[in-house]
Amino acid sequence: MTLTSAPFNVVADGSVTSPLGFRAAGIAAGIKASGRPDLGIWASESPCIAAGTFTQNTFPAAPVVLSRERLRAQARAQAVVFNSGNANACNGERGLTDAREMTHLAAQLLSVDESLVLAASTGIIGVPLPMEVIRAGLQQVRVRPDGGHEAAQAIMTTDTRQKECAVALSVGGREVRIGGMSKGVGMIYPNMATMLAFIGTDAALEPAYAQAALKRAVDQSFNMITVDGDTSTNDSCFLLANGAAGASQLDSSSAEAAAFEAGLAAVCTDLARKMAADGEGAGKLLQVDVTGAASDDDARRAARAVVGSSLVKAALHGEDPNWGRIFAAVGYSGAQVDPNRAALWIGSVQVARDGVNTGLAKDEARAQMTSAEVNFRVDLGLGSSSATAWGCDLTEDYVVENSAYST
Amino acid sequence: MTLTSAPFNVVADGSVTSPLGFRAAGIAAGIKASGRPDLGIWASESPCIAAGTFTQNTFPAAPVVLSRERLRAQARAQAVVFNSGNANACNGERGLTDAREMTHLAAQLLSVDESLVLAASTGIIGVPLPMEVIRAGLQQVRVRPDGGHEAAQAIMTTDTRQKECAVALSVGGREVRIGGMSKGVGMIYPNMATMLAFIGTDAALEPAYAQAALKRAVDQSFNMITVDGDTSTNDSCFLLANGAAGASQLDSSSAEAAAFEAGLAAVCTDLARKMAADGEGAGKLLQVDVTGAASDDDARRAARAVVGSSLVKAALHGEDPNWGRIFAAVGYSGAQVDPNRAALWIGSVQVARDGVNTGLAKDEARAQMTSAEVNFRVDLGLGSSSATAWGCDLTEDYVVENSAYST
Repeated sequence: MTLTSAPFNVVADGSVTSPLGFRAAGIAAGIKASGRPDLGIWASESPCIAAGTFTQNTFPAAPVVLSRERLRAQARAQAVVFNSGNANACNGERGLTDAREMTHLAAQLLSVDESLVLAASTGIIGVPLPMEVIRAGLQQVRVRPDGGHEAAQAIMTTDTRQKECAVALSVGGREVRIGGMSKGVGMIYPNMATMLAFIGTDAALEPAYAQAALKRAVDQSFNMITVDGDTSTNDSCFLLANGAAGASQLDSSSAEAAAFEAGLAAVCTDLARKMAADGEGAGKLLQVDVTGAASDDDARRAARAVVGSSLVKAALHGEDPNWGRIFAAVGYSGAQVDPNRAALWIGSVQVARDGVNTGLAKDEARAQMTSAEVNFRVDLGLGSSSATAWGCDLTEDYVVENSAYST
Repeated sequence: MTLTSAPFNVVADGSVTSPLGFRAAGIAAGIKASGRPDLGIWASESPCIAAGTFTQNTFPAAPVVLSRERLRAQARAQAVVFNSGNANACNGERGLTDAREMTHLAAQLLSVDESLVLAASTGIIGVPLPMEVIRAGLQQVRVRPDGGHEAAQAIMTTDTRQKECAVALSVGGREVRIGGMSKGVGMIYPNMATMLAFIGTDAALEPAYAQAALKRAVDQSFNMITVDGDTSTNDSCFLLANGAAGASQLDSSSAEAAAFEAGLAAVCTDLARKMAADGEGAGKLLQVDVTGAASDDDARRAARAVVGSSLVKAALHGEDPNWGRIFAAVGYSGAQVDPNRAALWIGSVQVARDGVNTGLAKDEARAQMTSAEVNFRVDLGLGSSSATAWGCDLTEDYVVENSAYST
């Protein structure tokens, strides 16, 4: 995370256990054939105010159905039990029974009420959870105050690296922390950005405010990344706030709400960027800024269309400044456009003005595309709204990884 | 084209010059560095009733702007001048001037009114047309009654084969013909399916009926194919009807309207399938049938989402029966779904029933995916609407082709 002036500080080596009173663990239970970590628990020492956002896929996985139901019944939770290697999706009634049993076992282990335990799964769709492996595995899980990194490893699927961060800020003179972890990597698309994300804070949050603040942070971070346009069955983002820092409770009218939300957005954005950069087969992180849009919605649509375009992504992989494809993507985004007003920059090189080529030296534009992080900016010249989206290049490796996943 | 019982016959070796009174030509003018055919004219000996459907991209190419304008002014045309190798898109005022000059030169050559000449371009975006090459080239173009195949070659970009067909049917005892050609291959996505398509008929059509019939045919053919989800700046589909067969004029109340539209849909569907099968880097044609949908719109959305899913396309390439990805795509399509009612077939093998795995032997499903044409059928179990969409697999070659196109 690189941040300059902000109302918060980055916590070194941050994780979901950076905030006070959180513990976690992750183990290799044997769900994954690879023997990598695949099962874990993240828990607070005391009950939390809880919020969540979930996939809009109409085939939601069983843990999504269960967690959404529990958060609707009460905006409280104390733990999340999770596994990778199996999505527990499209498994019918058995899927729900298995998800419930996972939370029941975790609740026993933690001595908390089962209704306070949420669940998350990620991996292959349509294969029942190996419950014997999970039952045996959960007996080995011992949550610890330094278990955050372990947990972040246990939610990985095709991720090549774990995704974690934390920030600290002051609320009424008390330090509060926000720590998060997430996993990508395929099926990454808005509504909501396909992923699992867990955000914990030792701030005290009023329940409705917790949900609203999480929604705002997700909309500008996880919902602005695209890897392949596929919205998964399992997307879940949880926010748990345990108040362990001892600071006064925040709500939308609090003086410190803006600082807290800036910190929350920074954590979510950092995780989102890491997910985009680690997209399946990705070699480059693409950041697309749209400015001058007639509305916020237009800016968001246009930015997401560009990062989602297969042709733009392939050109990025080839470091080919084929700028017409960028305009073409904006042109089918649904955003209001006046072709004669649009301008485009590849990195710092302006390649189009008033909708046409500036006559740039192509080599200059290409040079802007050789780094690991590439920036495109489209100015629509119509208004003052802007948005940023993140994605990655489309590579041969994406195809190779996804041609043979289930078998 | 393979057709069994239908109110029309397939014309052997069909092309846009199969209907009476049409002529065409295509030459290698030198727009493409490869030296392949890149410039041509398709014309009728007499003025035609004309209809068109165009891209919804808000950066429409200059020939789209010009042709749309002319067809709005009058539902008549006599010729289309076209080039490949350059899209004449994002070229501002100059683009329009160049497109107009192309039609002016073609009109002179054919001795027809310039307002009756339409234009179409396809290729790289944002590079001005090489007008000197086009001026010199057009002087070499001589339309001929047997020039259809030549024209079909001259609209190709990364197409590996030309796409043409024709059918014949009877209208009041007279044989009328419908012949078409199209080009794909990247930026293939509905609204309208990204492409150039030219459909000619020697039937006589009432103008409003011509437009309505074309729209219906396009909606079930070109608008149901997806290669990469990118809607281009240049999509254009033209229908010219010259009445040269001497049959009575058709309108929506004609007894033969249904047969004519079946023939028109067959031509468009055959071209659409050929485009999907020839998608950039494609190794397989994918046909997705959705049945049992609550509405036509739901059926179309669901079918298009499945053929458009990068994960489904990659799994198809790997011949991997990863059926959960198919349900996941239906799940984010926006179609109404009851997860407990959905069923799925891969070829003739039912892999899911009531939303869950049938417990099939995976090898049987895999065997259904080894052929060059693969069929998935999703039954939503909610109603009686159905739709069919076509796409292709996602291969390493797609990435390779699109990583370095402009340079």
